[in-house]
Amino acid sequence: VTPDPPAGFGDRLAAAVAGRRSQVVLGLDPDPARVGEGARAAREACLRLIDRAGPVCVAAKVQLAWFERLGAPGWEAFERVAADAGEAGLLVIADGKRGDVQPSSRAYADALLRPPIDAVTVSPLLGGDALEPFLARAVAGSGVFVLVRTSNPGAAELQDLRLADGGLWHEAAARRTAEWGAPSVGASGLSAVGAVVGATVPGRLGVLRALMPHQPFLLPGVGAQGGRAEDAAPAFGGRAAGALVAASRGIAGADDPGAAARRLRDAAWAAWERAAPA
Amino acid sequence: VTPDPPAGFGDRLAAAVAGRRSQVVLGLDPDPARVGEGARAAREACLRLIDRAGPVCVAAKVQLAWFERLGAPGWEAFERVAADAGEAGLLVIADGKRGDVQPSSRAYADALLRPPIDAVTVSPLLGGDALEPFLARAVAGSGVFVLVRTSNPGAAELQDLRLADGGLWHEAAARRTAEWGAPSVGASGLSAVGAVVGATVPGRLGVLRALMPHQPFLLPGVGAQGGRAEDAAPAFGGRAAGALVAASRGIAGADDPGAAARRLRDAAWAAWERAAPA
Repeated sequence: VTPDPPAGFGDRLAAAVAGRRSQVVLGLDPDPARVGEGARAAREACLRLIDRAGPVCVAAKVQLAWFERLGAPGWEAFERVAADAGEAGLLVIADGKRGDVQPSSRAYADALLRPPIDAVTVSPLLGGDALEPFLARAVAGSGVFVLVRTSNPGAAELQDLRLADGGLWHEAAARRTAEWGAPSVGASGLSAVGAVVGATVPGRLGVLRALMPHQPFLLPGVGAQGGRAEDAAPAFGGRAAGALVAASRGIAGADDPGAAARRLRDAAWAAWERAAPA
Repeated sequence: VTPDPPAGFGDRLAAAVAGRRSQVVLGLDPDPARVGEGARAAREACLRLIDRAGPVCVAAKVQLAWFERLGAPGWEAFERVAADAGEAGLLVIADGKRGDVQPSSRAYADALLRPPIDAVTVSPLLGGDALEPFLARAVAGSGVFVLVRTSNPGAAELQDLRLADGGLWHEAAARRTAEWGAPSVGASGLSAVGAVVGATVPGRLGVLRALMPHQPFLLPGVGAQGGRAEDAAPAFGGRAAGALVAASRGIAGADDPGAAARRLRDAAWAAWERAAPA
């Protein structure tokens, strides 16, 4: 008797990381300055990256902005790239950082959380009622990564403001994210609601892990933005799939993207093994 | 000799409000539950609304979520609806609430700030460096409305957190928005960088106007969400175009959308006249 596959995104993610022995998320950001202009060039560049680097990654993060820029043909290319990544055995994360009032959020959830897309990134700014359509999908099997502390230099301006309770604003966002994710914690201990935390602020990882014990962390900013997989150790929280390291330009811009992804995979896995409970 | 038309968005907005004697923004949110399924139904519903209610409005706010939901045909419909609204003499606001790291923000600005689109909504969460591509466009003639305090019930969760300095988080966002808008203040006294402030929190309008003296306010949530144009008085800041009232379901869901928009226009204009400097 074959057991049913685990249905929740947290459990699927845990199984995928264990199966592929990788925590690397391949960022697909087809900037025309690098790949040339047009939807066809964008898709072909993504396909090449999936072929070269995909086998050592666990997921692909498709940045919607580069496709939206191309209008209707861009949207078609996005759907094809998502399918290409899914067929390569990668979990597919649509990186749109959407956040809107509830009816519009429902439309965005319908737009983005459909096969072959496994997960999305969303903004917490509008609060829980606005995210409800995404959170309902998290209970039903999709993944939702909430922006908690982003990787860019200006993130500190509004996300790091000191609150009257003594904490920082993004810690409040982290607490909310943990609450939003509570109903979708799977047998693996991972919720379908994860958190985006910049790899560029490794000093924050331990605090945020304590506030969000069940959230898978998506750590963008490795490589070109200065984040290092070696520093991810406090993010794992005792689970190999507790932290995913995402690199875009760091892989796509390398002379040998496959080798760059492999080095990143090995560095992240080594960080996990050093951090793992004995 | 005909003078050149005012180039900045703030000045264009001031001229449009004076010319059309209206501060009403027509929300175009083609929810399939109301307009039927498919890109064609979405566009036709928007066209009908533009025909009926457009003549008494100054701008149209196109909610991207409902078009994104429809994939590539939805994107085409969005571009056509934006063109329809522009041809009807309305300023066109693409309501996408995008917010991402700088390279992706640049791609979003390219995607959305092109004719016939005059302005976009953006999220301040990632800070000024992330918004820089949009702010550069604001200096060059486009409009950018920054989310400061949204209209939904859950907005309070993270936007109203009390800071250590005694203010609220969204007041810090307001201060930043005023800074971001300083380089694009036009002869009208209005900046090309505006602020989205929910009409559902009229008690906040005076404080936010004091923090953002040059920002045009976009006030969503009038009608179905409970906001009232009559309460907008503190938002004008001495300028007729200082506050725009946006209604979506409140107009589209009315038996006579034209009459509903006209009532809203009259209520907003009366509020402005009561608030105007003598």
